[in-house]
Amino acid sequence: MKHEVIQKVFKDNDFIAQQNREILGQTVCVNVMGAPGAGKTSIIQHLKKIGEVGIIEGDLATDIDAQKLRDSETSVIQLNTITGCHLNASHVQQALNKLPLKNLKWVFIENVGNLVCPSNFDLGEEIRIVVASAPQGSDKPLKYPPMFRTANIIIINKTDLDADFDYEEFEKGIRNVNTNAPILRTNCKTGKGIDELILYLKKYQ
Amino acid sequence: MKHEVIQKVFKDNDFIAQQNREILGQTVCVNVMGAPGAGKTSIIQHLKKIGEVGIIEGDLATDIDAQKLRDSETSVIQLNTITGCHLNASHVQQALNKLPLKNLKWVFIENVGNLVCPSNFDLGEEIRIVVASAPQGSDKPLKYPPMFRTANIIIINKTDLDADFDYEEFEKGIRNVNTNAPILRTNCKTGKGIDELILYLKKYQ
Repeated sequence: MKHEVIQKVFKDNDFIAQQNREILGQTVCVNVMGAPGAGKTSIIQHLKKIGEVGIIEGDLATDIDAQKLRDSETSVIQLNTITGCHLNASHVQQALNKLPLKNLKWVFIENVGNLVCPSNFDLGEEIRIVVASAPQGSDKPLKYPPMFRTANIIIINKTDLDADFDYEEFEKGIRNVNTNAPILRTNCKTGKGIDELILYLKKYQ
Repeated sequence: MKHEVIQKVFKDNDFIAQQNREILGQTVCVNVMGAPGAGKTSIIQHLKKIGEVGIIEGDLATDIDAQKLRDSETSVIQLNTITGCHLNASHVQQALNKLPLKNLKWVFIENVGNLVCPSNFDLGEEIRIVVASAPQGSDKPLKYPPMFRTANIIIINKTDLDADFDYEEFEKGIRNVNTNAPILRTNCKTGKGIDELILYLKKYQ
């Protein structure tokens, strides 16, 4: 019974994710995932300069991150999951219907901070970015393989905060489950690595 | 249907958690939770000096942390959840049955790194420690309230790694959902704060 219910949840989600792709049309949708405090909000803040951006902000509670990201040129839709550990396609569809998609080239979704559950849910995105951070340690790809397996781009953020981070171990862990995704290093305090990330994103346009 | 299945999952879990309490007897069980990379393993490594300790190590994959923690005096049981985002009482019961409980005063459980889902599952523990870390940012209690609500002790780890951490904001966020839990600061590189943590734990003996 439990197994059947889970299968139905995934099947329903995939159906709505496909609808989201149709709603998005030419707008490129990016699902930004990672553990709490990896720096997802700061990465999206920098990515606004790519132009014509809308943002969907997923959190259990508060609109702290949405407030940081909202400005006169950027629509930000807040989704609060209360106890939910991930966004699903239905959450995202509600938000897409509130965004001025005709004027947007990009929609960035900041998923709930969680290195496990969000990877199981297709939101209708074209690109998955997984944000890791140096202070979280270089063993994370080996310890949380499902999240890193489906990533299109992987970021090591906060590279200024941990001099002991082992880049070689991290990359080896990634290549164990994901042969293709580029691995970029960013520091959101200085903006280092953001232009390179934008170059990778633009390949999807 | 989905709601009924979830209710049954929690009810079954609570039943097994109660069995775990009976299995544990006088041994004090501590559930250590927190986001990936907060430093749960390093905290438990230091806590071994409290004496007569067994460890249950929860990870999606690998036995990296169990290898770090195992020594001639410490039994460590590895649980791999594969894709599971939390430990449940049934996982823990399997591990308890393998530990030499008669010789143990303490069982430390390292839960899967996740600041959302593990808080929903009673494992039969007497104490919940939530490990946050300074580089993850001081807004986390407001953004992930369920995890901090049920904590008995809250730790801010890696205090050496982020000079900008706002202790006042963090504490204010905690007190919004949890009026009682002590908030301790630790640095696992130097061992700072560990003796204070042990004093708090000993109150439960």
